[in-house]
Amino acid sequence: MNRPIRTFLDQNNLDGFLYVGDSICNADMYYLSRFLAGDRFALLVQEKTTILVSSMEKGRAQKESTADKCLSTSEYNILELLKGGEKPNEAYSQVLAEFLRDHGIKCLGVAQSFPAGVYERLRPDFNIKIMESPTASWRMIKSPEEQEAIAASQRACERSICRAVQLIRGSEPRGEILYRGEEPLTSEMVRGAIEVSLLEDGCEAADTIVAGGRQAADPHMRGTGPMPANSPIVIDIFPRSKSSRYFADMTRTVLRGEAAPEVTEMYDAVRLAQDAGLKAVRAGVDGSEVHFRVSQVFMDQGYPERDGCGFTHSTGHGVGLDVHERPSISEIEELLKDNAVVTVEPGLYYPEIGGVRLEDLVIVKENGCKNLTHFERQLVI
Amino acid sequence: MNRPIRTFLDQNNLDGFLYVGDSICNADMYYLSRFLAGDRFALLVQEKTTILVSSMEKGRAQKESTADKCLSTSEYNILELLKGGEKPNEAYSQVLAEFLRDHGIKCLGVAQSFPAGVYERLRPDFNIKIMESPTASWRMIKSPEEQEAIAASQRACERSICRAVQLIRGSEPRGEILYRGEEPLTSEMVRGAIEVSLLEDGCEAADTIVAGGRQAADPHMRGTGPMPANSPIVIDIFPRSKSSRYFADMTRTVLRGEAAPEVTEMYDAVRLAQDAGLKAVRAGVDGSEVHFRVSQVFMDQGYPERDGCGFTHSTGHGVGLDVHERPSISEIEELLKDNAVVTVEPGLYYPEIGGVRLEDLVIVKENGCKNLTHFERQLVI
Repeated sequence: MNRPIRTFLDQNNLDGFLYVGDSICNADMYYLSRFLAGDRFALLVQEKTTILVSSMEKGRAQKESTADKCLSTSEYNILELLKGGEKPNEAYSQVLAEFLRDHGIKCLGVAQSFPAGVYERLRPDFNIKIMESPTASWRMIKSPEEQEAIAASQRACERSICRAVQLIRGSEPRGEILYRGEEPLTSEMVRGAIEVSLLEDGCEAADTIVAGGRQAADPHMRGTGPMPANSPIVIDIFPRSKSSRYFADMTRTVLRGEAAPEVTEMYDAVRLAQDAGLKAVRAGVDGSEVHFRVSQVFMDQGYPERDGCGFTHSTGHGVGLDVHERPSISEIEELLKDNAVVTVEPGLYYPEIGGVRLEDLVIVKENGCKNLTHFERQLVI
Repeated sequence: MNRPIRTFLDQNNLDGFLYVGDSICNADMYYLSRFLAGDRFALLVQEKTTILVSSMEKGRAQKESTADKCLSTSEYNILELLKGGEKPNEAYSQVLAEFLRDHGIKCLGVAQSFPAGVYERLRPDFNIKIMESPTASWRMIKSPEEQEAIAASQRACERSICRAVQLIRGSEPRGEILYRGEEPLTSEMVRGAIEVSLLEDGCEAADTIVAGGRQAADPHMRGTGPMPANSPIVIDIFPRSKSSRYFADMTRTVLRGEAAPEVTEMYDAVRLAQDAGLKAVRAGVDGSEVHFRVSQVFMDQGYPERDGCGFTHSTGHGVGLDVHERPSISEIEELLKDNAVVTVEPGLYYPEIGGVRLEDLVIVKENGCKNLTHFERQLVI
């Protein structure tokens, strides 16, 4: 793993960098410790990595984490402090301060998201710098193992979208709605098929989007109710492997029935824009340059962004232990580095027509990108 | 919903209380807005509730949230700031400051977990008090709708444990291992059956414990590999409904094969301790009193806590939008209030024997508790 910790501490005159939180929500903490915990713990990064955890969790931390050392708050007498009447947050901060002193900490780095309450209590005793978590940039570059984990999640993702597409393909357009036998085919049914497939592959997906018609015109709507016939249906799946914790992310847009000419044209424009984006991704290129190329295709094809319609979002984002992480591919400048993993996901949205989005997941390489997405791009199914 | 916001603000001389985070990890934010978002947004609580969100998410926030008003960072010109070269966190804080001034904020309350980076940048311009989030205590008392949501998750939980128990009951003890046909029955297989059942009921479960033998002696180990015969297997399931976001939580311990006398005795002691705990739960009683009663049963039955063995954890905790929330039932004093929802989960753990835990989920009532758990307590199956 790419962790130049010594250099980072030296450059910033720090004795250590401290995280306090849970590693389900704080992916930096999971990345650095491989210890998954829903309850708060502390992680001190020096040349060695030390976990401070409740006594309940110490055994598991020792077994599961990659930390060099695991200590418990009971060893720092937290129970005695609590029984003595200290408030929990106050007792915790006292324990934490003693733990930090034991580890020779005077100058301490913490991340932007560090809890303000703990920060305020530690501030009188330590010289604390709030800064960008260095881990975010370390996490950007994926090791071969991480790339394989993401590729595995992506394979599960494609198996699940395959089921969704089969379900829609097997439905019958009647009037404005798709039917499965006598029942309308709903977003919920398609999402259910996706989720079962993902579960079989050891993945979970929180907010799968299966949205047709007007619902698809808002790129963040999950979709609900009967699926429309003759109208584009956006399927956006971002599963996480339960074992590796790495995400994948992909989107396809499909239509069952007759496609109106303006829908086919929109789809073709999005496909051209995605091709341009995929062609532009390469180590050393700035993300804003890729975004510009994609936007340019939409302009050339007659789809300017206007009044909140058209191509209303950025081109892509990094994917790893978080589904949205660095780097971004947007108007903001950010260099794409070798072995970053990013999405390329242009889309067009119009309330009267609906939405079309195509999203591939790729690894940035020196000479271009390696596309992890193999699922076909086909509108009418 | 129980939200005496005006009183809280007046008592603390605050013009508003601000949350910044995502509402997947920050359950207070979800509770107050019913807007589920994995990306950071701001939530300002005054007499009215206002969301500040990216332009991408504004449409969904307006449709889905209960906030009185939704504004976007684009309306505060965040893109212009970013294009002008401001760093993202700096630009965000400038936008946030302007948003707060627009809402008449001078004195601002924030929670302990508020991000330190934003806190430091706002501090020069506002009088900020870091304090316990008032929402945690509001969340403790469950409305009838919340009680029903938790009860529904609990019903799903029981259907899933029923499948797990059927699977273990259908296995064959051969030597020290349980077999399903020619294959060893594994923790993973039992966990898989639980997860499929939960998914069918619209629930998800992150860290279901199915642990036997020595693994069960550590109350937090998830369990892996072949299931032991003649040895207690701890099954602890805490599913969350994907639609309501409310958790349930229950544990049963089962054994397939022959139970050694010391295991049966342990099981009986845990059952007695749980009965004592359930009997002690009532509105107005202190949680520490309930914990004391439970501990007393273990002492009386000859199971003192010693050398990290025995009853090593607290008796219970609140359950709601978080699986662990207030109130706690532990050594620490905390009053149990009417309509709080808590677990009662004594357990005994010995490395040489394994673990036994029984956990029910109950609603605290004036005259006792209403047990939401109906699944049998039976060791040998």
